[in-house]
Amino acid sequence: MAKYDAINLQDKLAMFGEQWAPKVIAALNDYQFKLVKLQGEFVWHSHQATDEAFIVLDGAMTIELRDGAVALTAGDMYVVPRGVEHKPRAEHECHVLVVEPRGVVNTGEAGGPQTADNDVWI
Amino acid sequence: MAKYDAINLQDKLAMFGEQWAPKVIAALNDYQFKLVKLQGEFVWHSHQATDEAFIVLDGAMTIELRDGAVALTAGDMYVVPRGVEHKPRAEHECHVLVVEPRGVVNTGEAGGPQTADNDVWI
Repeated sequence: MAKYDAINLQDKLAMFGEQWAPKVIAALNDYQFKLVKLQGEFVWHSHQATDEAFIVLDGAMTIELRDGAVALTAGDMYVVPRGVEHKPRAEHECHVLVVEPRGVVNTGEAGGPQTADNDVWI
Repeated sequence: MAKYDAINLQDKLAMFGEQWAPKVIAALNDYQFKLVKLQGEFVWHSHQATDEAFIVLDGAMTIELRDGAVALTAGDMYVVPRGVEHKPRAEHECHVLVVEPRGVVNTGEAGGPQTADNDVWI
């Protein structure tokens, strides 16, 4: 019998230190599961073609929206609807599992220096 | 400023007791996030049109495959590829976050008495 391995989220988180640089850990059809470490303030951006799911694994973060904000701690999730401008931020390092279609760039339509390489698997 | 609410996974889990009856807690485009409580043995089944992601939140489960198995505990995830027969089981109650396209029935092509109502939101 073959032995199939689970994907352990903490083991994968231990494999990188970079912040704001999503790492792909699994694919589901044409969607991807990405781990990201956040600290500080990200750029305002939106994704015109897709919703984006955030599941907080460790720590706390805030997703600022133009007319409000969502506070998330470990065990919380939130889906930012397509086209909605948002700005993630975290006072202390926060570990997040992001789910979205393959090919989505972290800075969306905004670009800029915080744009990370896409489709980086660990 | 509007106050947007996070979705807390444990709060949602506390809202139901049924086992093997997935509850939808969020949508991401045409995909859904579903919480399910598992204990005992499920039916062998497959999903011909889609992969299926399992993220274990509490407890432990095994996904049996025809040529092996995957053992998962809290913090582990696994994606069953489309068309691959699988049988989830758990000795003690296990809480899982399932991600898959809207409309996927829990028993896939197999049907039978363990088939749950689909698209039940909590």
